[in-house]
Amino acid sequence: MESGDGEVVRNKQVIFKDYAPGALKESDMYITTSTIKLKVPEDCTNGVLVKNLYLSCDPYMRNRMRKLQGSYIAPLNPGSPICGRGVAKVLDSRHPDYKKGDFIWGMTGWEEYSLITATETLFKIHDKDVPLSYYIGILGMPGLTAYAGFYEICSPKKGELVFISAASGAVGQLVGQFAKLLGCYVVGSAGSKDKVDLLKNKFGFDDAFNYKEEMDLDAALKRYFPDGIDIYFENVGGNMLDAVLLNMRLRGRISVCGMVSQYNLEQPEGVHNLMSLVPKRIRMEGFLVYDYFHLFPKYLDMVLPCIKQGKIVYVEDTAEGLENAPCSSNWTLQWPQYWKTSGCSFS
Amino acid sequence: MESGDGEVVRNKQVIFKDYAPGALKESDMYITTSTIKLKVPEDCTNGVLVKNLYLSCDPYMRNRMRKLQGSYIAPLNPGSPICGRGVAKVLDSRHPDYKKGDFIWGMTGWEEYSLITATETLFKIHDKDVPLSYYIGILGMPGLTAYAGFYEICSPKKGELVFISAASGAVGQLVGQFAKLLGCYVVGSAGSKDKVDLLKNKFGFDDAFNYKEEMDLDAALKRYFPDGIDIYFENVGGNMLDAVLLNMRLRGRISVCGMVSQYNLEQPEGVHNLMSLVPKRIRMEGFLVYDYFHLFPKYLDMVLPCIKQGKIVYVEDTAEGLENAPCSSNWTLQWPQYWKTSGCSFS
Repeated sequence: MESGDGEVVRNKQVIFKDYAPGALKESDMYITTSTIKLKVPEDCTNGVLVKNLYLSCDPYMRNRMRKLQGSYIAPLNPGSPICGRGVAKVLDSRHPDYKKGDFIWGMTGWEEYSLITATETLFKIHDKDVPLSYYIGILGMPGLTAYAGFYEICSPKKGELVFISAASGAVGQLVGQFAKLLGCYVVGSAGSKDKVDLLKNKFGFDDAFNYKEEMDLDAALKRYFPDGIDIYFENVGGNMLDAVLLNMRLRGRISVCGMVSQYNLEQPEGVHNLMSLVPKRIRMEGFLVYDYFHLFPKYLDMVLPCIKQGKIVYVEDTAEGLENAPCSSNWTLQWPQYWKTSGCSFS
Repeated sequence: MESGDGEVVRNKQVIFKDYAPGALKESDMYITTSTIKLKVPEDCTNGVLVKNLYLSCDPYMRNRMRKLQGSYIAPLNPGSPICGRGVAKVLDSRHPDYKKGDFIWGMTGWEEYSLITATETLFKIHDKDVPLSYYIGILGMPGLTAYAGFYEICSPKKGELVFISAASGAVGQLVGQFAKLLGCYVVGSAGSKDKVDLLKNKFGFDDAFNYKEEMDLDAALKRYFPDGIDIYFENVGGNMLDAVLLNMRLRGRISVCGMVSQYNLEQPEGVHNLMSLVPKRIRMEGFLVYDYFHLFPKYLDMVLPCIKQGKIVYVEDTAEGLENAPCSSNWTLQWPQYWKTSGCSFS
């Protein structure tokens, strides 16, 4: 049923139950079924009604499931479908830029069909010569995050020594490949043997290690970076950041993309080695991808040929079927790690 | 005795006893008297023999009295005179740039007479129309630190909201006055009522507070910066930095000059709020004045007229007599705070 003729259909939804501290549990969301009329209401100027095809599960979403004060993004509404980015097909539209049959990506909901009114978050998909799910990964927000965070914040140069934490995640795997393309030495950390294997054998990192097997992160970093680190792409925070600060080189740069090791904690861990910033003249800078959407066309021009020529690869972790979103062992396991954009396809 | 004719004279010295943890004590140094021949030895190419006139006591020196691994500056040698910057008169010279009678500033020792061989740290004093002691303060390393740390690292703009910790110190008092000259709103913190009075009434800060009287630094900052902080000139670290991170504005800048609250601790305090860097896109950057000595002539061109026109004032804390350096109550009290460059004159 994709006709958009106004038929009323059942709409399976994943509902966010309520804010909860600690690790997210399956019981923090539930499946329900409502109904939806497959037509944009007449009073909904610029609205777009879509069928969701792929939905992504990204680390920043964890912070929308907590009541964070002063966050850059509003908390989710308990009792409503979970919000997130998705790839979708337009079934009906009152927006001049989108027509029935178009494929789009942007903010939608964890449900089969969504009426999108915040259409400023949408992008039309032009190049369908790649997997559509890539538009919530390498060709979407995580891709642009990696691109902006590495090129705009890190000021990288050929031959520099680059360390990436949560390196097999949607962003990390790309940062590492961008750095390799530039001629950097690249090491990543991740939380399992499989991820470490991916980093070394699939993404072409020079080396990688499982941080969970290292009793002394400072010693591990000294092993992989005897001459120190020029660029640290920060995804985890906490103890890893503390160890990295001890191993940065003169005029090193730390691009702070996120601190996922801290998102389930009531009180973030303390970082003790910030005094290293001074003698080493380190620049540490936080960024949000929202400031760089103007670079999106430039990014696509760079990355699409790389994908098609096999110079950059992208690994997704996908669960089939919306009903499997909350209960999939993948999701449950990976929420605290957020190691990869997970698509949920149900076309 | 200033003739430089090679006479052997007595040379009072302040000797650094040994590395010690915790707050520095009077007993960590002692006074002795040796002898010195007032002539540069023939085999000492480029050496300069000086009579020290003013010696400065700066926060960075605390870290030379600890065995810090990987510090940018070597630890002091126990049993030797304390090293530090001073203003001195040349008594004899084998260096082509300096001749008898010249006044210089740079790295010298806590003693009456010094044979300086590391002459690359020396600057000749040309403008003697200001107090000579200013060359270890506003016209020396602390002045250039304030200038580079504010203008080069903070990218300040007129009207921005500036917070300075340890604000009555040699550097802080200047950063605040530079920011006021630029048209910023400036608030400083310091550790006593007298210092707070200086900030408000002498240095022209818009406001100031005694951090020791604030139970809740976050609340204090919200009182003085209801709209947040654009620029934080960081001198103290620890709890103050944590509170500042909660109060930074979008695209705020933190110039990390030092973290004096941490220098007497075995293990630095943890900073918990670094995740604020991300949503607020904060840039935090450490710097050392050594990278900016090429700006020295430009800085003097700016600051000398300001001093002479009374647009910038400078307050020193001076103890008379080298023998009073270790035991002066000023020094003892201020070591843990380092609130001000202290001169020690004995001309």
